[in-house]
Amino acid sequence: MANAPVQRMSKLMAKTLRDDPADAEVLSHKLLVRAGYVRRTAAGVWSWLPLGLKVLANVERVVREEMDAIGAQEVLLPALLPREPYEATGRWEEYGAELFRLQDRKGADYLLGPTHEEIFTLLVKDQCSSYKDLPVILYQIQNKYRDEARPRAGILRGREFLMKDSYSFDTEDAGLAESYGLHRQAYQRIFERLGLDYRICAATAGAMGGSKSEEFLAPAEAGEDTFADCPNCDFAANTEAVYQTVKPVDAAAVPAAEEIPTPDTPTIETLAASLGVPASATLKNLLVKVDGEIVAVGVPGDREVDMDKVEAHFGPTATVELVTEEDFAQRADLVRGYVGPQGLEKVTYIADPRVAPGTAWITGANKDGMHAKNVVAGRDFEVEAYVDVVVVQEGDACPKCGTGLKLDRAIEIGHIFQLGRKYADALKLDVLGQNGKPVRVTMGSYGIGVTRAVAALAEQTADEKGLCWAAEVAPADVHVVAAGKALQTELALEVSDKLAAAGLRVLVDDRAGVSPGVKFTDAELIGVPKILVAGRRSGEGVVELKDRRTGEREELTVDEAIARLTA
Amino acid sequence: MANAPVQRMSKLMAKTLRDDPADAEVLSHKLLVRAGYVRRTAAGVWSWLPLGLKVLANVERVVREEMDAIGAQEVLLPALLPREPYEATGRWEEYGAELFRLQDRKGADYLLGPTHEEIFTLLVKDQCSSYKDLPVILYQIQNKYRDEARPRAGILRGREFLMKDSYSFDTEDAGLAESYGLHRQAYQRIFERLGLDYRICAATAGAMGGSKSEEFLAPAEAGEDTFADCPNCDFAANTEAVYQTVKPVDAAAVPAAEEIPTPDTPTIETLAASLGVPASATLKNLLVKVDGEIVAVGVPGDREVDMDKVEAHFGPTATVELVTEEDFAQRADLVRGYVGPQGLEKVTYIADPRVAPGTAWITGANKDGMHAKNVVAGRDFEVEAYVDVVVVQEGDACPKCGTGLKLDRAIEIGHIFQLGRKYADALKLDVLGQNGKPVRVTMGSYGIGVTRAVAALAEQTADEKGLCWAAEVAPADVHVVAAGKALQTELALEVSDKLAAAGLRVLVDDRAGVSPGVKFTDAELIGVPKILVAGRRSGEGVVELKDRRTGEREELTVDEAIARLTA
Repeated sequence: MANAPVQRMSKLMAKTLRDDPADAEVLSHKLLVRAGYVRRTAAGVWSWLPLGLKVLANVERVVREEMDAIGAQEVLLPALLPREPYEATGRWEEYGAELFRLQDRKGADYLLGPTHEEIFTLLVKDQCSSYKDLPVILYQIQNKYRDEARPRAGILRGREFLMKDSYSFDTEDAGLAESYGLHRQAYQRIFERLGLDYRICAATAGAMGGSKSEEFLAPAEAGEDTFADCPNCDFAANTEAVYQTVKPVDAAAVPAAEEIPTPDTPTIETLAASLGVPASATLKNLLVKVDGEIVAVGVPGDREVDMDKVEAHFGPTATVELVTEEDFAQRADLVRGYVGPQGLEKVTYIADPRVAPGTAWITGANKDGMHAKNVVAGRDFEVEAYVDVVVVQEGDACPKCGTGLKLDRAIEIGHIFQLGRKYADALKLDVLGQNGKPVRVTMGSYGIGVTRAVAALAEQTADEKGLCWAAEVAPADVHVVAAGKALQTELALEVSDKLAAAGLRVLVDDRAGVSPGVKFTDAELIGVPKILVAGRRSGEGVVELKDRRTGEREELTVDEAIARLTA
Repeated sequence: MANAPVQRMSKLMAKTLRDDPADAEVLSHKLLVRAGYVRRTAAGVWSWLPLGLKVLANVERVVREEMDAIGAQEVLLPALLPREPYEATGRWEEYGAELFRLQDRKGADYLLGPTHEEIFTLLVKDQCSSYKDLPVILYQIQNKYRDEARPRAGILRGREFLMKDSYSFDTEDAGLAESYGLHRQAYQRIFERLGLDYRICAATAGAMGGSKSEEFLAPAEAGEDTFADCPNCDFAANTEAVYQTVKPVDAAAVPAAEEIPTPDTPTIETLAASLGVPASATLKNLLVKVDGEIVAVGVPGDREVDMDKVEAHFGPTATVELVTEEDFAQRADLVRGYVGPQGLEKVTYIADPRVAPGTAWITGANKDGMHAKNVVAGRDFEVEAYVDVVVVQEGDACPKCGTGLKLDRAIEIGHIFQLGRKYADALKLDVLGQNGKPVRVTMGSYGIGVTRAVAALAEQTADEKGLCWAAEVAPADVHVVAAGKALQTELALEVSDKLAAAGLRVLVDDRAGVSPGVKFTDAELIGVPKILVAGRRSGEGVVELKDRRTGEREELTVDEAIARLTA
């Protein structure tokens, strides 16, 4: 490969800005625009300028190398896709307003691909006919389109963005688990090489349908995801995927349940205040309708119910709604504000693991203005299913080691997913098995947000001076600054040529009429790992070599500096 | 860069087909599908399988290296573009049905970019403020979208395709000429490296507006362009851009014009037959309306008028139509079938250069059933403008050397274009000049069809056995064939590993249960330049090395073969 030409800043399409763009809320957005890496073309639609594109291409290269290393084959599918396969899987409708839909000149329906399960399934259906052709992993690095309701945060959540998506095809579940494992390892290597701080988090299935799924989250304030992180062990999970276990306690010493008058206490707050107990001593019973049937959900009075978790429990096809005034009107046994699990009939009762057998509660007595105390789970009422349905809070016990969990914001940079046979079923993907009979194929789907990884890197590595890239992804290896007039510029260009000849990627600030101070500020904003300054002592052939991250600097002869940089 | 892993055909997503796809008309379409390089996803929308993508990436790499070498800066603009800039230049409407238009969830209008002049103009407007920031050349390699009426010929004319488009920005015409020249040289190097046979042809401006323009045409039967090629000198031109010069002749010996009765001869054919003269002795006068005014176009009777040339003469804003019955009804002086230029009033008369001053013609006498002979241009009638408006024919004189031209089919693989200030005017792109006053920027636009170059290469280099790539673009350096059972497969894999370790890109046919004959046929269809066969003499460590193009083969020891291939 030919050495890259020295990039002169005097002509570089990378105008730096002193001020943050007015609409920028998050750090990566501010810095990537200010440092001239990207420019907004439309809402959620970005143009990549030369420096930004180099970082993007570096991320792409790392992803490609590690995908190739697990034997994945690179292909490139279209972004413009026909409606039919998405119709067959139901996603043409399911995607709702997030899907960009369009028609061609003949009125045929097309979409801009948000993800490509359907098209990969059809490709393998065309290419593979026997179990001998499998397992196979295919990937592409390609533009994806999602019409986000509020495209925001710069390139972190755009409407057109670059993604690596891959798909595995196996005949057996064990094979799928292996393909999934290969991806998990490849993703670990990718994010390590990129220098990203990340956690692998258990995730709920979400809209994809299927079984096992993990997210790779990069902690960052700008992140839109919240995850629970154990400061003591390796547990980390999307908050929707934190499940406590049921730990029964001994209720032998608890007196018999007893009704107590509690007028005007229809809420947990009024009840706790009236009795002088903490909300956590009370049992809150939320009534919902699941496919029309009433279900009561019991959680400690100080906790909120996470409706996503309730919905996840009943599965993607169930309809879950809160009960209404009318429902109460039709059920005299359900007394609003005074519901309790004991003696309730024709109501399915599920509860949080914290409502474990043997725990005693103050709860509604199913009579207006009345509660009951010493109501014991498993003694005074039965729990039909324990489901962790509460909103996770900072300090909740780690399900693995019991330490109080931390809640952190993060950017989802990767997602691995055992899809199973959902798409193969919808599109009839079979191969001939060893016994000559058709076998339905099982699939995995795996994504890395390439564009988003650039934003996550910017978020995690920037400091108060600006961007600060790791060598593997930096737009150049060294940023040479001509801090002075003709003499300095001449030396800077000479050193740049030598560094480029040695195979380094060089950015040189040769701008005339720009002060050294502005050049230094720009160099720190742009964030190339090494900064080499031809300044005051240029006449003696002495330059200053500075580390962008540590700020360490030393004076060296040109030859020493070149030797140091090419070592 | 890490060595590429050996690609085993047993798992490769590249199912070869024995038969041409039913809808394939051109060679590249047939072979690229049969060899498993591409698959159709929708009309004019293609998926690239691993082998195809490697060729595409090789072409991309060559283009990138040569663009970088002329100091062009790579950027990446979106494919999803807002309507407004295209509205400002009029192209939102002008593009007609060829533009993919869509709306986002808020009802805002977007398009899928067919080419990016507008967005680049706005980018430079944002980035450059002074003449010191120019000249600059920007490029991208990116998907383009055009809703072709009849997407055909496989990847040769798709609706989603990869293109390198670049744009130059200069303050002066001389600078534009220089940027244009740099592109011309870069394109020559690119097409030479790719191994494409091509001609640089003068082109008309077409719909872009502007001035100088040349096309890079790759001669191929499948091409949709026809160009005139001089077998004697270096003249080559798009047929619309072949202009004859006017060569006056001496008419001293021509008798005076004379009217002759020619009943029932309203066409050139009937006239020539009736008089017993060749059609070339007659003058055909086509009447058109240009913005409502009648214009007569005179050409020799044996030639057709090229309406594109007529339209190009009057410019992009003029409306050119044929005259109708009604027009004749309103103008008694215009006698249908018997129009002649002599004595015509209130009609602009333009003529082909072949109707040079001094040439004598038989033409209409502007009376029903009457013609006139010995009607001499410049004596009996005046030509207001000479314009080459005839359809070029094989054998027409080369405008440069006079030799008879050949007409050939070709694929347009590149186009370079001095746009001038059209887009800068529409979008108000100025920079501050040396004197402190704003200077309007002048632009060039330059394209290479990357997808199309792959098709052109396939067309030009294939032979009767299949594809046949040059080393620079081939999907692998060597195709190792295990022609036999376990012993051969073992040797093939061993040699493949050694070749890969030496830095070669290796495809190995390790398929079990596939006969050597089928493997040989597939290797020739796939077209990797070198084929190494582990066959009969594998036990002795002897393999056969074959050149795909020449068919030359020799038996070598494994070490000799490796030495030969890595030399």
